[in-house]
Amino acid sequence: MADPQVTTRVLRRLLASGLLTRAERLLARSRPADLAPILGDLQPDEVRTVVDVLYRQHRAAPTLAELPPELLPQIFDALGDQRLSQILARLEIDDMLEMVERLPEERRAPVIAGLPDEKAGELRKAELYPADSAGRAMTTRFVALEQTTTAQQAIDRIRAAGDDTDAILYLYVVDEKGGLSGVVPIRRLVSAPPDRMLGDLMIREPVSIRADADQEEAAQAVTRYNLLAIPVVDDESRMLGVITVDDVIEVINEEATEDIYYMAGLHEEDRVFSPALQSVRRRLPWMLLNLCALFVAAWVIGRFEQTLEQLVALAFFMPVVAGMGGNSGIQSLTVITRGIALGEIEFSSGLRLVAKELAVALAIGTVAGAAAAGLATLWQGSALLGGVLFVAMLVTVAVAGMLGAAVPLMLKALRQDPALGSGVIVTTLTDVVGLVTFLGIGTLLIDRLS
Amino acid sequence: MADPQVTTRVLRRLLASGLLTRAERLLARSRPADLAPILGDLQPDEVRTVVDVLYRQHRAAPTLAELPPELLPQIFDALGDQRLSQILARLEIDDMLEMVERLPEERRAPVIAGLPDEKAGELRKAELYPADSAGRAMTTRFVALEQTTTAQQAIDRIRAAGDDTDAILYLYVVDEKGGLSGVVPIRRLVSAPPDRMLGDLMIREPVSIRADADQEEAAQAVTRYNLLAIPVVDDESRMLGVITVDDVIEVINEEATEDIYYMAGLHEEDRVFSPALQSVRRRLPWMLLNLCALFVAAWVIGRFEQTLEQLVALAFFMPVVAGMGGNSGIQSLTVITRGIALGEIEFSSGLRLVAKELAVALAIGTVAGAAAAGLATLWQGSALLGGVLFVAMLVTVAVAGMLGAAVPLMLKALRQDPALGSGVIVTTLTDVVGLVTFLGIGTLLIDRLS
Repeated sequence: MADPQVTTRVLRRLLASGLLTRAERLLARSRPADLAPILGDLQPDEVRTVVDVLYRQHRAAPTLAELPPELLPQIFDALGDQRLSQILARLEIDDMLEMVERLPEERRAPVIAGLPDEKAGELRKAELYPADSAGRAMTTRFVALEQTTTAQQAIDRIRAAGDDTDAILYLYVVDEKGGLSGVVPIRRLVSAPPDRMLGDLMIREPVSIRADADQEEAAQAVTRYNLLAIPVVDDESRMLGVITVDDVIEVINEEATEDIYYMAGLHEEDRVFSPALQSVRRRLPWMLLNLCALFVAAWVIGRFEQTLEQLVALAFFMPVVAGMGGNSGIQSLTVITRGIALGEIEFSSGLRLVAKELAVALAIGTVAGAAAAGLATLWQGSALLGGVLFVAMLVTVAVAGMLGAAVPLMLKALRQDPALGSGVIVTTLTDVVGLVTFLGIGTLLIDRLS
Repeated sequence: MADPQVTTRVLRRLLASGLLTRAERLLARSRPADLAPILGDLQPDEVRTVVDVLYRQHRAAPTLAELPPELLPQIFDALGDQRLSQILARLEIDDMLEMVERLPEERRAPVIAGLPDEKAGELRKAELYPADSAGRAMTTRFVALEQTTTAQQAIDRIRAAGDDTDAILYLYVVDEKGGLSGVVPIRRLVSAPPDRMLGDLMIREPVSIRADADQEEAAQAVTRYNLLAIPVVDDESRMLGVITVDDVIEVINEEATEDIYYMAGLHEEDRVFSPALQSVRRRLPWMLLNLCALFVAAWVIGRFEQTLEQLVALAFFMPVVAGMGGNSGIQSLTVITRGIALGEIEFSSGLRLVAKELAVALAIGTVAGAAAAGLATLWQGSALLGGVLFVAMLVTVAVAGMLGAAVPLMLKALRQDPALGSGVIVTTLTDVVGLVTFLGIGTLLIDRLS
């Protein structure tokens, strides 16, 4: 792949000098995925020219489909409604849907009005599926045939499909009611005798997914069974569409980003190249929520003002207790939420997992607590202070480990996204437990400590 | 997919009652990916029986390939060297390599000795590639033909490959020196006239990857260009092997797990079902490292003992300043490391990204700092204390945001994994900056504060 920054420079120079034919040749040589970031670096009038060229080369639609979502607004702004309609009409329905959703409200109606009736109808149908469902992620281009169709007849049908041949990976075999009864990998056709019937070639009981299922389930099934595409069916197992593996990879990357982002309280569209103001608006609510949580911790410390006045050294160790608790909680939390995301956890084994994380945290709390107690004793010359730190840390690290496992499992049982929110809940509870334990024991023993 | 827990129960009952034929039928009906977790729940003698059955059904190898790595040791323990050699011999080379690496040291030699010479030779060759390289992730089963081969001849070659037809997705077209000159998607053969030459059917200048490149690069290329497989070549672009999209999905999931795990200081094999003792051993070093980092913070606070003695209320707000700084740092860090992982960042734009994250953090620090100052003023009745909190929080949140962006970019420039270690570095620096700023300003103004 060529360096996009070089290509951008060359392209702009060609456009500025009016060398359109050479610009066209440069564009023709580039792959859609490589053109996408270049498009993001151009001025509006350059975008218009380049998209015109790409449209004539029948590559505007695939290029736009490859654009990172955060770059779409500036491209939309540069293009007229008519051109946008023309490009959308050439997209797969799932990509079309994604683009339409990102169009500014006021442009949706005119752009959709410019679509061919058939495409507009498909779009309306796709919009009925819930967000992030398999129905929204599927394309409706697939070849469905009957069991009695021969291999040769199937090949003729594929030939008739023309241009799209490259996108077809399986033939779907349906019964008289349209119900999915098997799949034939296209490559099986290659070596099949021409008169063999699809019913004899097909893989029976194929893995499929309901249109209203979460797209993440589709991704998990494709991953689990090493598929190239998964058929999407209605509740009577009639074929509705297909999700291909390239879309599955996109889903997997999206979901991984979401999981990583949620741990840090980030909005999934707050990306490296998002405008700064948007990032500020998206991060502020989470930061203010955290501020409240931290003021709870501050208030807890405030309750122990007298104790701290008698022995200010206790304040030195507050971040140690809270910090170690926080880390323990985050570790358990991460193991569990990742396990949930990868579909490794059946809810029934939840208690066993919580018990394991608690056991691990108890062991770690004992060792780390002893180390901390030793350091504190050496520094402050008080074995009793070391003892208080040991007990507080053991309790906090253990509770945090247990909460880190239990909170996401409970959120999952309540059908909430376990990655979202678990972090604040766990760390806030951990802070409170840690501070109350440490300062509480300190208060009980304050006369012997100071 | 059937409920694995039900299947396990039924299977165990059948085995216990000696109803082997019915057990065989149950196993024959299950997919390898569904059998894998069941295998993990069986006793050693049951594992032996089931693996024997699966081996006769030619499905032991694919089932083992689907096992999560943390379950492998117990399966290996249940099986003899000879049976293991037989199963390994039926695996793709990349899966074989992975299994051999997970064998206990003392069993490797006897198991490898049991492999057919050809397989053992391939294994030795594959072991020469660096860890996590494309060369290790590739399979060596592919069909390479010449430009002048006709579609019909190619189909005959595929037929001759027999069983493996399903795994073939592309034909690779090579020149007389073995150099890769194009690829033909198998499905193109279906609709091609029998006498058409591959040279006319092939896609020229196909995307390929060097064997010594990181497997993550292969995954990024497959994702970027929506491929089903990517050819792996040597430095003279001769075909060596192929990485298929199912392996790419595995790499993507692994890398995402790694990134999420590294943020929490977890070892990538510390999974939900890992034994507790292993988890303890793997998490302890990180926790002890964090303990040291937190003692640095404790020591910093200790430097301000006198200040705190004069105004213990300052201690209430230490976690607020450090916590908000920590969150700001983690947010920037997450956006940048995720951008790096998805290949969205060219290093040249690093400064721009740091500047953006700094700007975002400044804005957030201003708003959150003002909110914190307001709360603190109301609570403690001192606007001056509120002012100190405001300044300290603004500085800390801003510095943290900048560090969160700069540290992973620097680690990347130094060719270190940016996800590993960035977290501790950023939060430790942030804690120190936050505490020094807050307590430092507090010390300067202590006479007017208390």
